[in-house]
Amino acid sequence: MNFLTDDFLLQNQYAKTLYHEAAEQMPIFDYHNHLDAKEILEDGCFRNLTEAWLAHDHYKWRAMRAYGVPEELITGNGDPYEKYLAYVRTVRASIGNPLYHWTHLELARYFGITEALTEDNAKTIWDQCNALLATGEYSVRNLLKMQKVTHLCTTDSPADTLEAHLALQKENTGIAILPSYRPDVLLYPERNGFREYVKEMEKVCQKPVRSLSDLAGCLEDRLVYFVKAGCVVSDHSIEGAFFNPAATEADADAVFRKCLKGEAITAVEAVSYRGVLFTLLGSMYRKHRVVMQLHIGAIRNNSQKLVSRAGANTGCDSIGEGEYIAQLGGLLNALERTDSLPRTIVYCLNPSMNEALATMCGNFLMDGGRSQVQWGPAWWFNDHKDGIEEQLRIYARQGVLMNHPGMLTDSRSFLSYPRHEYFRRILCNLVGTWVERGEYPEDMEYLKTMIRHICYDNAMEYFGGVR
Amino acid sequence: MNFLTDDFLLQNQYAKTLYHEAAEQMPIFDYHNHLDAKEILEDGCFRNLTEAWLAHDHYKWRAMRAYGVPEELITGNGDPYEKYLAYVRTVRASIGNPLYHWTHLELARYFGITEALTEDNAKTIWDQCNALLATGEYSVRNLLKMQKVTHLCTTDSPADTLEAHLALQKENTGIAILPSYRPDVLLYPERNGFREYVKEMEKVCQKPVRSLSDLAGCLEDRLVYFVKAGCVVSDHSIEGAFFNPAATEADADAVFRKCLKGEAITAVEAVSYRGVLFTLLGSMYRKHRVVMQLHIGAIRNNSQKLVSRAGANTGCDSIGEGEYIAQLGGLLNALERTDSLPRTIVYCLNPSMNEALATMCGNFLMDGGRSQVQWGPAWWFNDHKDGIEEQLRIYARQGVLMNHPGMLTDSRSFLSYPRHEYFRRILCNLVGTWVERGEYPEDMEYLKTMIRHICYDNAMEYFGGVR
Amino acid sequence: MNFLTDDFLLQNQYAKTLYHEAAEQMPIFDYHNHLDAKEILEDGCFRNLTEAWLAHDHYKWRAMRAYGVPEELITGNGDPYEKYLAYVRTVRASIGNPLYHWTHLELARYFGITEALTEDNAKTIWDQCNALLATGEYSVRNLLKMQKVTHLCTTDSPADTLEAHLALQKENTGIAILPSYRPDVLLYPERNGFREYVKEMEKVCQKPVRSLSDLAGCLEDRLVYFVKAGCVVSDHSIEGAFFNPAATEADADAVFRKCLKGEAITAVEAVSYRGVLFTLLGSMYRKHRVVMQLHIGAIRNNSQKLVSRAGANTGCDSIGEGEYIAQLGGLLNALERTDSLPRTIVYCLNPSMNEALATMCGNFLMDGGRSQVQWGPAWWFNDHKDGIEEQLRIYARQGVLMNHPGMLTDSRSFLSYPRHEYFRRILCNLVGTWVERGEYPEDMEYLKTMIRHICYDNAMEYFGGVR
Repeated sequence: MNFLTDDFLLQNQYAKTLYHEAAEQMPIFDYHNHLDAKEILEDGCFRNLTEAWLAHDHYKWRAMRAYGVPEELITGNGDPYEKYLAYVRTVRASIGNPLYHWTHLELARYFGITEALTEDNAKTIWDQCNALLATGEYSVRNLLKMQKVTHLCTTDSPADTLEAHLALQKENTGIAILPSYRPDVLLYPERNGFREYVKEMEKVCQKPVRSLSDLAGCLEDRLVYFVKAGCVVSDHSIEGAFFNPAATEADADAVFRKCLKGEAITAVEAVSYRGVLFTLLGSMYRKHRVVMQLHIGAIRNNSQKLVSRAGANTGCDSIGEGEYIAQLGGLLNALERTDSLPRTIVYCLNPSMNEALATMCGNFLMDGGRSQVQWGPAWWFNDHKDGIEEQLRIYARQGVLMNHPGMLTDSRSFLSYPRHEYFRRILCNLVGTWVERGEYPEDMEYLKTMIRHICYDNAMEYFGGVR
Repeated sequence: MNFLTDDFLLQNQYAKTLYHEAAEQMPIFDYHNHLDAKEILEDGCFRNLTEAWLAHDHYKWRAMRAYGVPEELITGNGDPYEKYLAYVRTVRASIGNPLYHWTHLELARYFGITEALTEDNAKTIWDQCNALLATGEYSVRNLLKMQKVTHLCTTDSPADTLEAHLALQKENTGIAILPSYRPDVLLYPERNGFREYVKEMEKVCQKPVRSLSDLAGCLEDRLVYFVKAGCVVSDHSIEGAFFNPAATEADADAVFRKCLKGEAITAVEAVSYRGVLFTLLGSMYRKHRVVMQLHIGAIRNNSQKLVSRAGANTGCDSIGEGEYIAQLGGLLNALERTDSLPRTIVYCLNPSMNEALATMCGNFLMDGGRSQVQWGPAWWFNDHKDGIEEQLRIYARQGVLMNHPGMLTDSRSFLSYPRHEYFRRILCNLVGTWVERGEYPEDMEYLKTMIRHICYDNAMEYFGGVR
Repeated sequence: MNFLTDDFLLQNQYAKTLYHEAAEQMPIFDYHNHLDAKEILEDGCFRNLTEAWLAHDHYKWRAMRAYGVPEELITGNGDPYEKYLAYVRTVRASIGNPLYHWTHLELARYFGITEALTEDNAKTIWDQCNALLATGEYSVRNLLKMQKVTHLCTTDSPADTLEAHLALQKENTGIAILPSYRPDVLLYPERNGFREYVKEMEKVCQKPVRSLSDLAGCLEDRLVYFVKAGCVVSDHSIEGAFFNPAATEADADAVFRKCLKGEAITAVEAVSYRGVLFTLLGSMYRKHRVVMQLHIGAIRNNSQKLVSRAGANTGCDSIGEGEYIAQLGGLLNALERTDSLPRTIVYCLNPSMNEALATMCGNFLMDGGRSQVQWGPAWWFNDHKDGIEEQLRIYARQGVLMNHPGMLTDSRSFLSYPRHEYFRRILCNLVGTWVERGEYPEDMEYLKTMIRHICYDNAMEYFGGVR
């Protein structure tokens, strides 16, 4: 069969050489995901493919809903095998969807199964995989080791005590499990849960928080704590307006005090507060050498019916429109102007803003070393073959491809690591095609170095080598 | 000659197999067009190619204006042959424009002419086609039958008495000519003609309309009337803001009463009214099992000079920018939350919003059967080879391609049916290329079924099989 | 080596035929650039590659900053050879960036160097090029003649006395060096320097300017002066809102008078003034047969730190989001309605608006001759292989490719002319590929004519043949 061969996605000899002689051997630095450090600490096994594949994966849930699978077999209490079978039917119908490739790469790389999944072989494959999953060789940590993961960054709340991370640090597992600092809740004073979270911060820091400056103090305490636990990168979801260049720290402090008192604030006030807090956080990141990571432009939980049935983040998020390029420029300028711009990596969800975002990142690079402000790889709804290739093309034409930070999984599943292979094949194919077409010389040793940098070395330098 | 062969647009063996063994044989369900049912009832013949091609086609008019043809030979009183000749010159210069392909497919499929049209053979082809058009074999209905059209949905005003549709229903023509319900005028209270249309509704329903609830009653009466005449789908053009989640039925009623009195309303009031009316219509569609069709984002009649010379809708419309993703999400959520979401198919005119729109449609699929909310095929300025392929790619990567509703003509011309063939060739080529490149297995029987579903069966189920 | 052969970017036989038999021989009409007429008048030589390549080129500066080069070696006082070497390293790492192709085309076409530039051959190439640059054969005018430039349009301020242009006109150099009229400063009353510029206009026109009508009088005087000096095209950078259909000349006059008095104006007032001034300028251009050129959507000088170190326009501009399609439609409609629409060529910086812009241009073509309102070629951040091809594809599918106005350099460097070759190769490859794939007949003589039109003849007619 022609499908998923050794040369999957590699359409010419140059692409094959680059992949097999450079990309394939590289380990993985997964600088952003949603894995649970506690599960890594416990190092347990999955009971079956449904648990491994379908327990948390809203990408798969969306596809199943589109295919017409009832919610019972998606997030409901349906029988695990029936759920798996519903997914098998869905994925077979999903030609052109990255799930098709991810699913088959996972079967091949973890379980050695190279057949295409259909209703006919579903039972055999179910049995085969479950048997393997039951063995210690398929424990959570071993799944990571199979894919040569050396570092991974989870996503964590500032008030988190990071017990699992600290315990893992002591255990010396051979994989660096690093927390990421995600203070999102504190950036949205207009949402429910804000005041409660301030209370949590007071408790964990054992300090009263009565002003913005108190809050900043607590945030820095926690950042220092995170850094000790290995943190190299922060994370923020930006939804709606987030920066007003005219707002001062005094303005933001006034808004914060209103919130603490439980008074209502206006949308404009929320933005003033948010923008100022971003500048305070940015300069902390700079000081403590933590990368500032910004995920911009999702609109979340659009279906109240689904949320009330299955909970938040269960597959009814989507790409927003929104204007944020000028605001982002304002924030980065405010930080750069005061010499407090940290290394910054930015993603946007709406691909129509890719080109504008790439050029905005390129404005703040003076004396900052290689690509201090980075446009991050294809995110979420853009994480598919076309989207990855497009991100690489735009990155290359608006910047210097040699500096690309490489891939991440952004996943909740321990089986998602072949997404790095997928990215690498697409990268090698793109570069190989340029050489094949005479658009770049056959400078293969130089290009292999470039591929290695993008696959791993750049992330090591940008994130891992920060201090 | 290599041009327009049997394998036109089919670049590999898999594509050829899928097209010739699955797509080519399928009949046509044309679920949206602007054909005139009266012309189908009368079943007349066209006098010449100019009447058949150029009488109503603003796509061709725009191209002719761009080429520099004087208005006299476009919408003016110029000699029919001179008009045709001006079009021949224009289309020859229009490499890369879908008109080039449509024109030649029409010559080939209806008239058996496979030469490329130039000034040299223009007269011969004119004579040849006109001779055929004069025969009864080229009557309006026969043109539809030549292309195996089994169902077509025209676009009609709620106050229309649908006499032609009802007469055709009795005649049993072998083609289902179904009206579509398009209550646009009632959605824009800020425009001229609104009150006059309310009067028309009063008259046709023989009821007074003094409140929003009266209006809704009339609208439902007419919808029931339409359904009896075979209506399976509605249609709405959305231009500008259209949904405010905070507006109540009482707000909208107040706005409506102001309009009835001839009082001016604000832009905000118009949106409140519009959004509420959309939710009322949506739940009627749900109740009567009619698909809700939304065409979003045109800006129309931009050139006052052209409109005053040639009238509205004569070729000076274009793609708007506009932010509507969040509003669309709000409307769909409001309907879903109250269990009144009908089957819904949405199109947007600005291709930069494709990806956002596709993901928004994917949020409202819970327990709804296969793709209850659909992103419709490439519309108007997107209806060309690149746009069709892009729509299919995005549909596939953000959803389940197997569910794609297939093509429609959206045309005012009885000669436009080869646009379905055009779509099918592009579809088969895309799918075939994925197989050729090893991105999907050679699962040809399964893929042929998928192609048949997309070409016809899905539309039958989604529209035709509604009740 | 396969790189940069005679058939660079030409992927099939048709493409090769079209390029070598039609495009390659055509001269160049460069209708928009930022060259300095004084340097052409002086006809000096460059001291070295650094002066020729790096003295003014913010495209290269951005890439160097991204690669991590310190500012000292970019806009600072670093050693010229060290700067060159830093650029060599940067460009080698920039696979997929148009700089890679431009740089190598320049080495090949001007200096006969066909090797790929690396650190290893950098010194040899430096010596070789510098030796040639020192000879009179590489004077500024000879560089233009090497590339068969017949006409070029510089960018000039209305108050400019155009001494260099007038002197060149007398010298009869064999190249028409034409000024372009760029009254930008007067369009932005809210910015610094506005009143000072009004004073300059008063001085150069020897008339007092106390009202909008006085200003318009001065602007027309200068336009007439420019036209005598050979001006065929104007230029305007549109940033932010620029047209309000409700604003009257009286409104704009009031705003203007406030500005003259030094009073603050609101953003709304600025837009009223700007829109009205655009309509006044448009009708002057119509009257004096000058093309109106609009560059829309940059956001400039985003990094205050860089601007304070290196000055404005040194490489921290980027693509803005912004909504301008409807405003553009309003302006063009206002001009067309009053029979004062001049030939107009529009560019936008955000490629996500390409399709909307192309369709908006297509609304104002009635009785205007071939493509009176043009969508201009891929601009600035879009000026790369993918962007050029995409612009051509969209131009073709939304209009008539035969009318395409062709390429321009938009450059500050006398070595940039191979960008026309680059464009031509991409154009021929696209058209050739359509023929190769059977999407257009092998009508090669017709297609060669089309290629010649796009490469040169259309610009001659649209700009040069204006009067």
